Amino acid sequence: MENEFISTEQIERLIDEKKVKEIRQLFEVVPTIDLAEALSDIEDTKKIIFVFKTVKSEYTAELFTELKPEIKEDLINLMSNDELTDVLEQQFTDDLVDDLEELPANIVTRVLRNVPKERRATINRLLNYKEDSAGSIMTTEFVVILSNMTADEAIKQIRKNGRNKETIYTLFVMDNQRNLVGTLDLDDLIFADGDTKVTEIMNRDFVTVNVDDDQEEVANVVKRYDLNAIAVLNNDGRLVGVITVDDIMDIIEEETTEDISKMQMVTPLEDSYLETSPIKMARKCIPWIVVLLILGTFSSMVLSIFEDRIASIAILAAFIPVLMDTGGNAGGQTIALMIRGLSLQEFGPRDFWKVIRKEAVSAAIIAIIIGAFAFIWFSVEQYLGIVTNSNLGYDVSIWLGNCWSKEYFMEVMKVSGLVAGTLTIGMFLSKMVAVLLPMGAAAIKKDPAIVSQPLLTTIVDVTSLLVYFGIASLIFVF
Amino acid sequence: MENEFISTEQIERLIDEKKVKEIRQLFEVVPTIDLAEALSDIEDTKKIIFVFKTVKSEYTAELFTELKPEIKEDLINLMSNDELTDVLEQQFTDDLVDDLEELPANIVTRVLRNVPKERRATINRLLNYKEDSAGSIMTTEFVVILSNMTADEAIKQIRKNGRNKETIYTLFVMDNQRNLVGTLDLDDLIFADGDTKVTEIMNRDFVTVNVDDDQEEVANVVKRYDLNAIAVLNNDGRLVGVITVDDIMDIIEEETTEDISKMQMVTPLEDSYLETSPIKMARKCIPWIVVLLILGTFSSMVLSIFEDRIASIAILAAFIPVLMDTGGNAGGQTIALMIRGLSLQEFGPRDFWKVIRKEAVSAAIIAIIIGAFAFIWFSVEQYLGIVTNSNLGYDVSIWLGNCWSKEYFMEVMKVSGLVAGTLTIGMFLSKMVAVLLPMGAAAIKKDPAIVSQPLLTTIVDVTSLLVYFGIASLIFVF
Repeated sequence: MENEFISTEQIERLIDEKKVKEIRQLFEVVPTIDLAEALSDIEDTKKIIFVFKTVKSEYTAELFTELKPEIKEDLINLMSNDELTDVLEQQFTDDLVDDLEELPANIVTRVLRNVPKERRATINRLLNYKEDSAGSIMTTEFVVILSNMTADEAIKQIRKNGRNKETIYTLFVMDNQRNLVGTLDLDDLIFADGDTKVTEIMNRDFVTVNVDDDQEEVANVVKRYDLNAIAVLNNDGRLVGVITVDDIMDIIEEETTEDISKMQMVTPLEDSYLETSPIKMARKCIPWIVVLLILGTFSSMVLSIFEDRIASIAILAAFIPVLMDTGGNAGGQTIALMIRGLSLQEFGPRDFWKVIRKEAVSAAIIAIIIGAFAFIWFSVEQYLGIVTNSNLGYDVSIWLGNCWSKEYFMEVMKVSGLVAGTLTIGMFLSKMVAVLLPMGAAAIKKDPAIVSQPLLTTIVDVTSLLVYFGIASLIFVF
Repeated sequence: MENEFISTEQIERLIDEKKVKEIRQLFEVVPTIDLAEALSDIEDTKKIIFVFKTVKSEYTAELFTELKPEIKEDLINLMSNDELTDVLEQQFTDDLVDDLEELPANIVTRVLRNVPKERRATINRLLNYKEDSAGSIMTTEFVVILSNMTADEAIKQIRKNGRNKETIYTLFVMDNQRNLVGTLDLDDLIFADGDTKVTEIMNRDFVTVNVDDDQEEVANVVKRYDLNAIAVLNNDGRLVGVITVDDIMDIIEEETTEDISKMQMVTPLEDSYLETSPIKMARKCIPWIVVLLILGTFSSMVLSIFEDRIASIAILAAFIPVLMDTGGNAGGQTIALMIRGLSLQEFGPRDFWKVIRKEAVSAAIIAIIIGAFAFIWFSVEQYLGIVTNSNLGYDVSIWLGNCWSKEYFMEVMKVSGLVAGTLTIGMFLSKMVAVLLPMGAAAIKKDPAIVSQPLLTTIVDVTSLLVYFGIASLIFVF
């Protein structure tokens, strides 16, 4: 995203010239994330410290959150304990926990020493939840309303306790036993008469998630119900945290990147592309290529077995790439539909048979239509002399005028039939494997995106080659 | 998503038994989207009409929005003009416009006849914006606050005008000339003293989008700045609409599905997977496979040209699949990184050289490391007898004990060198093409996701084959 408001040079000059007033003004009119981005490129972290000392504390928390981990580390090292405490006090607990997960241990210790005891306990609890679980991303800063309050009392409660909470747009209503009995939208509260009972305007049809639920599942629920915030319950059914929609957006982004990376067999990058060094990039890419290269040995093996057949009818080799590619392409389409459908929960493992049946029918239609087209196309290729079968002693190209011989015609039909037939079988198989593997992965609660097109290609390649030379052995005399 | 609250059978029974009270209660405790899903599977639309007549009008609008287009069409046909007007009155204009875009023309005419004249004008205006532009997805129902108001006056204004607005959590502040001068978060208003001036608590650092901006760009802005709603300005800089975060979530979902589909060369489905018929599915899949199949002709052509070489050294054919696949896989990884980086705006066309340089370095590292590994691996394959070169009269497998002959060793080195060399060149080229094409597409403002891995594979296949047989002609005597 182009930073339209402020450049690193501009802000660095203001810092160098100690223009306190201008810097303060900047934070009023420029979004903090843009300023954080501009500041991130300043070499000398001491200059950033100067900004922290200059601007209002309401801006420093967000500024700190948006900086890169390396800069956060430098900053913490440069700050006095008092300065550090000031910054930490303003941070939302869930942001702070995110930071701590990325920072080195000695920094974490120092940060924890500088937060009050009670908050430290909360942070430690959040740090203990499984990675990517609802517990690990929730915030503990939310507003509770008691069910026996009136609208006016609720608003008073929000004014008293709502500051520094992650959201006040969704409020959580508890009864006297501290059970969650409803959620309350701030707008309903605003429109209600002052003496309306909270129980009359709260939502009883609220949904919740469990602390152990996966973040992707949480994202799907929030999206489905168009929520601003969702309650997270522990295993005893108690409200322990809240996840807000802005965090959900980040999760969706992260999960999508993960899906796309896995689909193309590259380990997801931790940082943005431009921040990842070529060496690190190589480390993310090489392992999977090596795995696939080794798996590719099987197709070399099959071809080596049929070496003498290729030597005697070399035209067979000419169609190998198109056979491989078409099978892979057909399966890749199905994989895209599966990965997306599963991740949006349009269907799940329980729809196994429904999906298999649907895909079998459409795969059959596709394979037969493409097969028929391919048969014609491969025949045209031979008649136009695009591929020739010099070994067999026939070159049927229309330019030579010998394309009308019945013997030549039969040879062309044999080759086209063989290739198109293998293609049809290969495409059908490829699409079926492309359904079975992700659905199977989902059924045993594994990430379906692990079944990538490259992996599929490798499996289908070997099968297609066996079918190809199997049929070839039947219809040709070698 | 599993519907945990209600099944179609349960709700159908309640309707059949005309249990008005139970149905009303159901809408209090079950999220409307779950009810809409359960109702969608009822065959007889008249039963759904009964629900519309039974429940409070505050639920019918959302219920209507969540139903499938076919059912909406049936419902509108079955409703009297008065009933229709009731439902339409409750609907948000942006939802209504979305519906109208999917409904047949006669229904659209009837709907438009049943909304008040002023609203009809708004709807027609929204219908005229380009598809997927900010204008086409925005709502015109937002709350305006005047900049000279106090906090108390602003709240009074919200209570008066805020009902039936898409959001009151973000308010839009205008000066006397009706210029947008700020946005105001409802929480800041709640925490402010009653006589605080709006100008003191509003955000001056707000961002806006233009009516013609693409929805993906809008989504990126809302995500970047963690907004609840964003102002849409027309070309004169006037506030004409607002887009809220729940619509943004739908856009992100839609755009991601589009990216993933294009990456695997399947035309995105309009409906969910389970609702798409196999025939329709085939129509989405077949065209691209045919295009790729025809493009595949070039690799057949190259192989056909080198037919006599394959016939005399058939081992060359054995490595064709692994050459093709590895090139495609390597490029596919880069495509995944490009598509994702571009769509998240981590980089853009302006970073062209930066990205090219970075990718060239990492592609070189990857190609050389994998090439070296492949050289060793291909040699091992030959020594283990996984691939044999019977034509050349050498079979060097260690089992035969003849693997130590210098002559045989040289033959193995030649083959491994040829294949690994081609692989190295192919991978590097593939990764570079995988950068150039999407970045080029982005530079001329085309969707980079159009450059899919299948297309790349086809391009790289031909190049690799030419390199392969080119080098082969140099080092082997045919």
